[in-house]
Amino acid sequence: MIVVLKDNPNQKQLDNLVQWLKSMNIDIHFSQGKNTTILGLIGDTSIVDIDLISALDIVESVKRITEPYKNANRKFHPQDTVVDVNGVKVGGGNFQIIAGPCSVESLDQICSVAESVKASGAGMLRGGAFKPRTSPYAFQGMRDKGIDLLLEAKKATGLPIVSEIMDLSQMPLFEEVDVIQVGARNMQNFELLKELGKTTKPILLKRGLSSTLQELLMSAEYIMAGGNGRVILCERGIRTFETTTRNTLDLSAVPLLKTMTHLPIVVDPSHATGLSKLVKPMAMAAVACGADGLLIEVHNDPIHALCDGQQSLTPEAFTDLVKSVQNILPFAFHGAH
Amino acid sequence: MIVVLKDNPNQKQLDNLVQWLKSMNIDIHFSQGKNTTILGLIGDTSIVDIDLISALDIVESVKRITEPYKNANRKFHPQDTVVDVNGVKVGGGNFQIIAGPCSVESLDQICSVAESVKASGAGMLRGGAFKPRTSPYAFQGMRDKGIDLLLEAKKATGLPIVSEIMDLSQMPLFEEVDVIQVGARNMQNFELLKELGKTTKPILLKRGLSSTLQELLMSAEYIMAGGNGRVILCERGIRTFETTTRNTLDLSAVPLLKTMTHLPIVVDPSHATGLSKLVKPMAMAAVACGADGLLIEVHNDPIHALCDGQQSLTPEAFTDLVKSVQNILPFAFHGAH
Amino acid sequence: MIVVLKDNPNQKQLDNLVQWLKSMNIDIHFSQGKNTTILGLIGDTSIVDIDLISALDIVESVKRITEPYKNANRKFHPQDTVVDVNGVKVGGGNFQIIAGPCSVESLDQICSVAESVKASGAGMLRGGAFKPRTSPYAFQGMRDKGIDLLLEAKKATGLPIVSEIMDLSQMPLFEEVDVIQVGARNMQNFELLKELGKTTKPILLKRGLSSTLQELLMSAEYIMAGGNGRVILCERGIRTFETTTRNTLDLSAVPLLKTMTHLPIVVDPSHATGLSKLVKPMAMAAVACGADGLLIEVHNDPIHALCDGQQSLTPEAFTDLVKSVQNILPFAFHGAH
Amino acid sequence: MIVVLKDNPNQKQLDNLVQWLKSMNIDIHFSQGKNTTILGLIGDTSIVDIDLISALDIVESVKRITEPYKNANRKFHPQDTVVDVNGVKVGGGNFQIIAGPCSVESLDQICSVAESVKASGAGMLRGGAFKPRTSPYAFQGMRDKGIDLLLEAKKATGLPIVSEIMDLSQMPLFEEVDVIQVGARNMQNFELLKELGKTTKPILLKRGLSSTLQELLMSAEYIMAGGNGRVILCERGIRTFETTTRNTLDLSAVPLLKTMTHLPIVVDPSHATGLSKLVKPMAMAAVACGADGLLIEVHNDPIHALCDGQQSLTPEAFTDLVKSVQNILPFAFHGAH
Repeated sequence: MIVVLKDNPNQKQLDNLVQWLKSMNIDIHFSQGKNTTILGLIGDTSIVDIDLISALDIVESVKRITEPYKNANRKFHPQDTVVDVNGVKVGGGNFQIIAGPCSVESLDQICSVAESVKASGAGMLRGGAFKPRTSPYAFQGMRDKGIDLLLEAKKATGLPIVSEIMDLSQMPLFEEVDVIQVGARNMQNFELLKELGKTTKPILLKRGLSSTLQELLMSAEYIMAGGNGRVILCERGIRTFETTTRNTLDLSAVPLLKTMTHLPIVVDPSHATGLSKLVKPMAMAAVACGADGLLIEVHNDPIHALCDGQQSLTPEAFTDLVKSVQNILPFAFHGAH
Repeated sequence: MIVVLKDNPNQKQLDNLVQWLKSMNIDIHFSQGKNTTILGLIGDTSIVDIDLISALDIVESVKRITEPYKNANRKFHPQDTVVDVNGVKVGGGNFQIIAGPCSVESLDQICSVAESVKASGAGMLRGGAFKPRTSPYAFQGMRDKGIDLLLEAKKATGLPIVSEIMDLSQMPLFEEVDVIQVGARNMQNFELLKELGKTTKPILLKRGLSSTLQELLMSAEYIMAGGNGRVILCERGIRTFETTTRNTLDLSAVPLLKTMTHLPIVVDPSHATGLSKLVKPMAMAAVACGADGLLIEVHNDPIHALCDGQQSLTPEAFTDLVKSVQNILPFAFHGAH
Repeated sequence: MIVVLKDNPNQKQLDNLVQWLKSMNIDIHFSQGKNTTILGLIGDTSIVDIDLISALDIVESVKRITEPYKNANRKFHPQDTVVDVNGVKVGGGNFQIIAGPCSVESLDQICSVAESVKASGAGMLRGGAFKPRTSPYAFQGMRDKGIDLLLEAKKATGLPIVSEIMDLSQMPLFEEVDVIQVGARNMQNFELLKELGKTTKPILLKRGLSSTLQELLMSAEYIMAGGNGRVILCERGIRTFETTTRNTLDLSAVPLLKTMTHLPIVVDPSHATGLSKLVKPMAMAAVACGADGLLIEVHNDPIHALCDGQQSLTPEAFTDLVKSVQNILPFAFHGAH
Repeated sequence: MIVVLKDNPNQKQLDNLVQWLKSMNIDIHFSQGKNTTILGLIGDTSIVDIDLISALDIVESVKRITEPYKNANRKFHPQDTVVDVNGVKVGGGNFQIIAGPCSVESLDQICSVAESVKASGAGMLRGGAFKPRTSPYAFQGMRDKGIDLLLEAKKATGLPIVSEIMDLSQMPLFEEVDVIQVGARNMQNFELLKELGKTTKPILLKRGLSSTLQELLMSAEYIMAGGNGRVILCERGIRTFETTTRNTLDLSAVPLLKTMTHLPIVVDPSHATGLSKLVKPMAMAAVACGADGLLIEVHNDPIHALCDGQQSLTPEAFTDLVKSVQNILPFAFHGAH
């Protein structure tokens, strides 16, 4: 961390700052220019609050040199992390497609979709039991009953299941769920992240609508700091001025995150674009630039889907997508981190 | 709600749609152009899922005419709502300043700030006990102990207190807190909103970093649909490409929300700008365009503030701000909704 | 275009509106609901100013059904446009890589890069003579001398050349330039677009930093309305809150634009990301989702590049990129417009 | 400027860098930490290309300490600049309202509006002759005829006139125009800015839709570097994800720019919000936080305005706005730069 001081800093305040930093075991390296004094802070600066230092009267500006995330940082963990979900692996060269309906609606529906996506090549089944809906009047999901149905579909197909948690009070319901998804709106629900850090469950952590890549990694860090290193990151589009697509899928995040972290990164083109006609091309693009997996919404009857139907694929369209993706997979980018 | 159909829609699918709409007591008004058929949906369309209709093969586009929020809608409740907090009123011509430190740090600190802001004219005391921090290694607040200290400061000064809840498991701790704050990162924590709707506590609901005004009102609607109409909205800056300020304070939201809703609207210039030198001018601007109140961060010793120090005012600067704001208040905008 | 009227519209104002619309040969289709009157406007509504109608006292809201662009619209021109640049074709299944340095610096430099990128498979040479720089103190390009050197490189290699125009006063200098590039900052320089519409030159039109896809197509429409249909669109990143990359490459724009327009679409991963390590993966992703070409910055000596060096590739890295791209090309997405 | 080197930098490359910096008269101040070497560059670093240095293999990151603008920088010119337009002063405590129609339409119209806004207290008349319109099919302004009519209105009322230039070929037509406006879409039309720098005309420079404050000041710097210091800055809204307003008015820019520059800053609430009902409250807010002036759209007959009618005020509404603004003016913020 570099601290640039203002001209003629108050000596007493400077002494206070130095003493405070030393109390945190930070070494300080002074470098005195003609008008400017620069402090180089050396040591574990991840515990230093950059906002606090910026606030000081004597400070012109502060700049981090080392990243504030440690457990998620590739520098300290050069090998790719492989998350093993009951034998289904994600990351480190293992590519997986996680597919299923937006919402679980009935036993018939979820089992039928599960059989179908498994046959087409999906490695895991996704399905929403608890649904974060903008409107209190919209369908909120089948809730605990939905989890039960997912577990039935798991039993029927053998596919590990992925489902979204919306509050830590729901934790007991997720005991047999294989991967717990943290949605974009909960990416900075820090109390939830801390609790998930205490489990040993794989966590699928979605990027918030207006979250930077560093903030995404800091949220992963919350989980990892608690002892749970089984985190899968998910790029699912960010909010921008462009409204033709629901969000703007930020695919540069894929190869960039690969240089920043060792965690696997999957892409959700369904939610990102909100348009079923864009799901296949964006899935192909995601694979080409190195994604470790895809999250794809598939419904057996899009006309009657209870939510998010606009972005769902039919099983036939999904089968076609899987083929297109498999064609590209052997030629996909493998970063040089 | 207007539904524009594609050319030559499949008759069976159209019949299905019509039947489904009628099952929700929606009347349909057909209007047949040369190439285009338009359906006008009449009735309580707030329960109709716009995404679901957009998803249908036969639909070109859908547009809402009436807003999807009812309880929060000024159309159905023309008078300003006044939220009464132990006799301290907000809204409907009642202006309040809510001031205090970012984080509660000690009994001395919170009581000293409380006395000071009360003397300068603040109507309520704010203070963070649970702090949402981007980094797991940053100070997370004094938590339940912090709530205790706030209650001491309330006892000492008589000021009602405002504090942020981060998870619904913390609800019991907030029993004696006068106003429960929902932070920007929790604006779409729908499980929390539902629970708050079951209480009778005033709720200070902050706009999310990337939330539209309609989404803010839909989150208020979650609380109100549960039976709790005592919601105070808070504009606190949105995330944009401009990084000189921490966020971009969207003051147009104030007069615009006044036309959309009857709820009081307060502004938080401290968090929005992240720069103490901008707090006073933006507080003045907020008052000029009709805000019902302000949220101002005040610290007795900014150098040692444990977080967010950059945006805190000293008690002296706060006193000066209050005077400047009071000069403008008599001439402030009063909407013509 | 659909116009929703407010309740109980003033009859005189409604008559004025109807008369004005009829004077533009727009047919009006009334549909009267219980509380709402809807006008359906039929005819060439591209000439109707939507803002003007929205402004009327009697109007609640307005929504376009048909797109305001005609020449660029795929609906009226279902076949892909192929832009032929001296025999080098772009679009309709013809894929091209346009490569070269950010700025032309010397005859040696431009010829050496030209030879090198031609050998690796580039179909055209790019090079900046006029450089739009944020700072007046930064290198502004070699200007007319730079154009001369590009023409030398063209003579030496046979590669058609692409260069950016910054003002219509520079038009005479571009007489022998094969493709005139309009930069992101000039996408809405309408006087320049009109003038380019009068030429027969192929135009490479870059998307503005904060331009929607519809605005990009409206700028293309400016050129096409003047009679010049040889427009190549270029996605080069949009400005968002994320600052790790210089801009956010919006690859969904590629398959989406394919459904909206018949014009070819190329992608510039160099400017979009601003990071050389991301150029190859994003080039691969762009090809996977259906881009008709790429714009790649290549420099023979990145250390001494006079500008934008951070995003340049060495000739060796470019050769590697071309191979990776060619592997994916046979399996790339071909839209179902 | 601070340059942080990577671990174990290549010595030859480091020597090259040092030599190149010295050739620009930059002094270098080395500071060697345990793992990190930091270079402090001292001298006129405004001529150093930050992108170029970032691109070097041996460089980890670069940070500017001093701003890249000099002529516009308050540090080097502490007093407020007052722009005198034929005796009508803007800045340094002189507040002005510039009012008039979006487009000049007829002699009657412009003279009638001019008389009316003068009577209400406007200090200058604005009116568009050349109109930047998204669609080539929309009204493009009366062009040179429009300028003639504005000059007639100036003769009739004595009000100085402000009008937008769209291309430098139009310069001769602006000889008698008192203030030349550069629109948001031309803020980075650098060729135009350079030409305006050679004149002695006051320039009203509008912030681009996606321009940072620093970029705005760099564009002012283009004009000032040419010798023309008479620049008035204009905040007119930025593009964000929020679409209820046309743009998001960034009022924090007003007090913030005051600390960065000595140039006057005016605010255009009409274009920023695009909604006439928001013009008055946002004008009041702009004044409260210290704006040196306002740009207000006024039309004598909003129903027939040829463009942008949605944001226009009637003369009566304008008179009311002026009164509200004058009430606040004596209590407005005056920065402590």
